[in-house]
Amino acid sequence: MTDIAMIEAARGRLSGHARRTPLLSSSFLDDIAGRRIFVKPECLQQTGSFKFRGAWSAISYLPADIPAVIIMPADAPRIKIENTRAYGAEVVLYDRASEDRDEIGRQLSSERGLTLIKPFDEPLVIAGQGTAGLEIAEQASEEGITQASVLVPTGGGGFISGISLALEARAPGFTVHPCEPEGFDDVTRSLASGTIQKNATQSGSLCDAIVTPQPGTITFPIMSRLCGPGIVVTEDEALHAVALAFNRLKIVVEPGGAVALAAALFHGESLGETVIAVCSGGNIDPDVFRLALDRFAA
Amino acid sequence: MTDIAMIEAARGRLSGHARRTPLLSSSFLDDIAGRRIFVKPECLQQTGSFKFRGAWSAISYLPADIPAVIIMPADAPRIKIENTRAYGAEVVLYDRASEDRDEIGRQLSSERGLTLIKPFDEPLVIAGQGTAGLEIAEQASEEGITQASVLVPTGGGGFISGISLALEARAPGFTVHPCEPEGFDDVTRSLASGTIQKNATQSGSLCDAIVTPQPGTITFPIMSRLCGPGIVVTEDEALHAVALAFNRLKIVVEPGGAVALAAALFHGESLGETVIAVCSGGNIDPDVFRLALDRFAA
Repeated sequence: MTDIAMIEAARGRLSGHARRTPLLSSSFLDDIAGRRIFVKPECLQQTGSFKFRGAWSAISYLPADIPAVIIMPADAPRIKIENTRAYGAEVVLYDRASEDRDEIGRQLSSERGLTLIKPFDEPLVIAGQGTAGLEIAEQASEEGITQASVLVPTGGGGFISGISLALEARAPGFTVHPCEPEGFDDVTRSLASGTIQKNATQSGSLCDAIVTPQPGTITFPIMSRLCGPGIVVTEDEALHAVALAFNRLKIVVEPGGAVALAAALFHGESLGETVIAVCSGGNIDPDVFRLALDRFAA
Repeated sequence: MTDIAMIEAARGRLSGHARRTPLLSSSFLDDIAGRRIFVKPECLQQTGSFKFRGAWSAISYLPADIPAVIIMPADAPRIKIENTRAYGAEVVLYDRASEDRDEIGRQLSSERGLTLIKPFDEPLVIAGQGTAGLEIAEQASEEGITQASVLVPTGGGGFISGISLALEARAPGFTVHPCEPEGFDDVTRSLASGTIQKNATQSGSLCDAIVTPQPGTITFPIMSRLCGPGIVVTEDEALHAVALAFNRLKIVVEPGGAVALAAALFHGESLGETVIAVCSGGNIDPDVFRLALDRFAA
């Protein structure tokens, strides 16, 4: 199981490969939210997403020159599929509605003799994601922050589990909340009910990056122990956050990556005076970005 | 005159106010340029531009609660004018073609008893801009870089003068080049001829941020002593760089702020294996950003 020692070890492996992303802020965003907002822009991470941390953490245990096969949903943004191929990987597409990614992974890895790395229910991946939590603890401390609500876009729960474990050890005054888009709030419902709940559908969201069938069997107990209630935002609120991140922070965030910023801006009533919103990724197709600008950055 | 001690002192005053921006990179950009490219994204600086550094450096010498009057060109992007007012300043607009900003500044400061701070021909401002150069030297050293071409978007020359002075002291193996848009290449022509040259016109460029009438009387000798030849890019190349920064770095850059990245990507023939391109600002109107996406991020 992932613990703070594994997270610190992952940081060692990531050194010189992953980026230490900064902590951003804007008084304009503070005014909208009625509280102090800091943003941790993981869209500025290598590959445009926090996922690099967990992937590198796990892959750095394997021989350097292995072939990579990546299983991706067929309705993923074009830019993600193209970039994955451009980095040299073979991409296997599957249909979210009718196929089971885990089953495809088991079959492919057994047929070809490959090591299967799951995207979130995997201790080494969670340890890598936790390195973002170490940075948040240090950067908040530099800003003199001792209490904060940390909001994290959440799909399967690997990212928020890693961050929660890191903050439990390094910033125990912080509370962590998962953030999800309306209609895909499996984690929020699972935490509220105490048992794993599924999403009714798995596609059709602009917030594709954080849509998974249900919380993981490893991540759910971590979230149950360490996280506060989830916060659910509308797709419009996520797009509005994308436009405000463009205008006020000069960063490119995808809708799924912007749900925590949207929660901080528009659903902060129950939160403390200081909120740290993680923007988890920036791999957005230009058409969706234009849509956000058209509607909210006139 | 600005020297490394003044730059270090400015860094002390900026501590806790200005942001240490990261150094970004993308293998996709390296492939386009045929060399290693690092980007220093000053669009992520407070207020979305490097200008915060110089302004804070100068203003921190004055009493805390002075009223601020900002003289801006009437054709500046709307977002810049609105944000300046939103921060609480009085904005005085002038026409670039027919009016003289320096003369307006002299008159206003004398009438109202205000301290005049010029935007670039001012030692304290140059010292503040130089703090970006200190960061570049340190961050390049962390990456193991001992030789690099540093490209800087250049208008009046305050930013590049500060960076050049900092690098002269802290990274003497680096060469610095001013970058300008076609038709507004006063610095490039001035350096080539050895005497101050003017631009034929002062408006009509998408790269408005870095359009000034001519190099400064303080900055020109610094650039002459410390900078290599200028690099001129087309407006299309600047827009292309804006789109690539969106796609590959997940940052929002304005066209004027992207001319150094454009130079690195499309005019790198004479440069070394490692280029550090400064993206100086991100205050772009949504319509111009859409134009860049429409044309170069299809």
